[in-house]
Amino acid sequence: MPAILNSSLFILHHHPLFSTLRRHHHLNISLFSPSRNTNLRASSSSLSVESSANQNVRTGRSGSATAPPVEHDTAQKIDVNPPKGTRDFPPEEMRLRNWLFSNFREVSQQFGFEEVDFPVLESEALYIRKAGEEIRDQLYCFEDRGNRRVALRPELTPSLARLVIQKGKSVSLPLKWFAIGQCWRYERMTRGRRREHYQWNMDIIGVPDVTAEAELISSIITFFKRIGLTTSDVGFKVSSRKVLQEVLRCYSVPENMFGRVCIIIDKIGKIPRDDIRKDLQSADMSEVAIEELLQVLSLNSLEKLEEKLGASGEALSDLKQLFSLAEKYGYSEWLQFDASIVRGLAYYTGIVFEGFDREGKLRAICGGGRYDRLLSTFGGDDLPACGFGFGDAVILELLKERGLLPELNLQVENIVCSLDQELQGAASEVASVLREKGQSVDLVLENKPLKWVFKRAARINARRLILVGKVEWEKGMVNVKTLSTGEQLEIKLDELE
Amino acid sequence: MPAILNSSLFILHHHPLFSTLRRHHHLNISLFSPSRNTNLRASSSSLSVESSANQNVRTGRSGSATAPPVEHDTAQKIDVNPPKGTRDFPPEEMRLRNWLFSNFREVSQQFGFEEVDFPVLESEALYIRKAGEEIRDQLYCFEDRGNRRVALRPELTPSLARLVIQKGKSVSLPLKWFAIGQCWRYERMTRGRRREHYQWNMDIIGVPDVTAEAELISSIITFFKRIGLTTSDVGFKVSSRKVLQEVLRCYSVPENMFGRVCIIIDKIGKIPRDDIRKDLQSADMSEVAIEELLQVLSLNSLEKLEEKLGASGEALSDLKQLFSLAEKYGYSEWLQFDASIVRGLAYYTGIVFEGFDREGKLRAICGGGRYDRLLSTFGGDDLPACGFGFGDAVILELLKERGLLPELNLQVENIVCSLDQELQGAASEVASVLREKGQSVDLVLENKPLKWVFKRAARINARRLILVGKVEWEKGMVNVKTLSTGEQLEIKLDELE
Repeated sequence: MPAILNSSLFILHHHPLFSTLRRHHHLNISLFSPSRNTNLRASSSSLSVESSANQNVRTGRSGSATAPPVEHDTAQKIDVNPPKGTRDFPPEEMRLRNWLFSNFREVSQQFGFEEVDFPVLESEALYIRKAGEEIRDQLYCFEDRGNRRVALRPELTPSLARLVIQKGKSVSLPLKWFAIGQCWRYERMTRGRRREHYQWNMDIIGVPDVTAEAELISSIITFFKRIGLTTSDVGFKVSSRKVLQEVLRCYSVPENMFGRVCIIIDKIGKIPRDDIRKDLQSADMSEVAIEELLQVLSLNSLEKLEEKLGASGEALSDLKQLFSLAEKYGYSEWLQFDASIVRGLAYYTGIVFEGFDREGKLRAICGGGRYDRLLSTFGGDDLPACGFGFGDAVILELLKERGLLPELNLQVENIVCSLDQELQGAASEVASVLREKGQSVDLVLENKPLKWVFKRAARINARRLILVGKVEWEKGMVNVKTLSTGEQLEIKLDELE
Repeated sequence: MPAILNSSLFILHHHPLFSTLRRHHHLNISLFSPSRNTNLRASSSSLSVESSANQNVRTGRSGSATAPPVEHDTAQKIDVNPPKGTRDFPPEEMRLRNWLFSNFREVSQQFGFEEVDFPVLESEALYIRKAGEEIRDQLYCFEDRGNRRVALRPELTPSLARLVIQKGKSVSLPLKWFAIGQCWRYERMTRGRRREHYQWNMDIIGVPDVTAEAELISSIITFFKRIGLTTSDVGFKVSSRKVLQEVLRCYSVPENMFGRVCIIIDKIGKIPRDDIRKDLQSADMSEVAIEELLQVLSLNSLEKLEEKLGASGEALSDLKQLFSLAEKYGYSEWLQFDASIVRGLAYYTGIVFEGFDREGKLRAICGGGRYDRLLSTFGGDDLPACGFGFGDAVILELLKERGLLPELNLQVENIVCSLDQELQGAASEVASVLREKGQSVDLVLENKPLKWVFKRAARINARRLILVGKVEWEKGMVNVKTLSTGEQLEIKLDELE
């Protein structure tokens, strides 16, 4: 759409600038092109005012009559949707996001965690692991204008590890950090999954004991309870990568295959079992080892695990300790052992867990585990560490399905409106007074019919409507209407609370 | 660094898996390589435990003795710094960011604005304007894996415009929206400027009157006051692009040059005046027009502007109305007219303003204005609109310089610690009880000396230290120490508040 030049042009001959113009003898009057002259002439006609009023029709007003020229070289209609796989957050979505994040934040703080964040754009090198992880294959990576390989972070843990190494000995352990950040992955978009999501992370750095994992799971359960979920809605599947490790060692599978084997096993149930077998074979596993492994992975009680691995291994003692702590915390009914849980990230080394919905309809709600060896993969000194990631997508799906999404409405305490164009400034003064007293105020910025004002008051769930009318204002008073009761009072401006 | 395989290996002959192994006759025992055997033998020696203890030396504990193998193909030391021009937010920085954002948010809500957000990655097309803006030249753009041109948003307004067009008639005007989002620009990094910053935006869509600009400026001043800045620290320079427009029309400068001329003028004071003149010439301005323009731009009172432009133009009437409203709001001493203010974005059409520090040391603190024609540049129907952007960088510099940065310390109400390894579960129970009552608790997750616990309590500014000792616990009690007074009480767990 080309720019419509309308109205607002000064009457050239009465304009002081024009006298300046005339003083300059070398001025080339022909600069005023015929079409410009037409515009200038049109400027004083009522037609142009009409076209301006049309433009403002959605505001219900004829308003400013000026439309200064803007370059319209790119005025073909743009795609009004956010890029594929991404979201806008209009107010109603933003309220939900803020509600969710507040719950993440308050739970984290209740557990004594400190918030941190990292750049959404990181060096690609931070995510290059050779284990065939889904997250690695879906890296949203670019070359920047300085020819550096960069990536939109697919997860927060590598950045956290980087920061921990950077801080070195300047921080006192244990660190208890949480973050809520946007993460990206370049998926094919076949499964209705988005390319970005927000992820809540809590990490404990410096605690080798399973007490750390128990504390993390406790915080997630605290979060679940806060938002109305019970143990009949959700639960945790728990295992330890040490189970796998013990099996693999037994069959002399080379250590550098550990991460890769974990990633393959994580695909059980997602890809055909024969493909799993083939992948495991290509990871240097013998047929017998594969069968044994698959059998171990089907175990779902610690008793059976003990029968299989014996009582002396760490896998079993870690898991036993976790279940014992769960009892003390009071959340053991949320927890179940499931040897098939390995999680899809290469860096986990010990306990792994994931939150799931009991109806089994959704992907994992959250997942985490111990990653005691991640720092050294970045060239740092290892520190015992564990953490989890909790996305915003699945939990909102679940809450929606359970009818547990909160009703979050805009609420502004007061709406202030002048009854007269001339009292607009007075209304501003009233709004200022209220705001200085800590009240929220939606100030009506135009001269609007009362019907419109009441409609807006309802939309913003205002408690009070404050009208500034001429007669009251001359007495330093305003008309205050409590909208729930209809009660109406004249109140002195300096007595307005 | 290669993975150090240490300890934790089971005694092979007693292990149930081994009997399974032996049952498989086709098992090739030579799979157990000599080096593996060495490891297996080492596993039961105390040596390996020592090496594990060394690894955990920073945690002050000998802990988990297991270090499962992880792939170390990429174990060269990574760059521990965030990418050039970006920031990490360790806890102390994050507290400051949260404090700043809370103030942005609370002020916005006090003014009845609703929060929104958009993707940080947008289509590049959203930012292609041909006016030579700095922001356009510094676009952080890429080609994505689907060969689409995308960019990290350099500002929020184009996304907002996109969303407004998308929502169309489904929203009731006026919209009062705010956003706090990270914005990116690919700068040469010569001036110590970063490549990302967070920006607070407030926008009013649908109000053609200057009342909207007055409300926006009022909100920024409310913010300034909240964080301790006064009119002796900061002020606003205000003008209108209609001033320029009137001059340009007078000299028949083609309309499609308007945005470009504004951008050139915005560079006054930043690049040599002769370059400004050359640039204006190349924007089809005659010498005489340039001189007149520069003269008008030097004006700093509305009286002089009126002398120059006459009383009938909209530039003057808008500005007069703004200053009159400022008086009603009570912030006129914060405001000054300065014709040289045009702002560096192509899309402004009316009032423009910027916040500045009175010492003149820093770049603009914030800036905004009216942009009534932006939507049509995207192929939408225009709506009257105005807004501002307020970055996180300059304001923090200013607060630092004025000594107004708040002291923000971590504060966790309670620290809970067991006096005995065996009571770790009991400590978890105590922590849970307190958290269920809404208290925040830092639970000590390892067996630590009391000296360490007191040090941590001080670091987290705990109000109470709760010790779980054997004798008390057997009576269902814990030891509660108020840290400010040293007062110590035995309290029943179910009476703990």
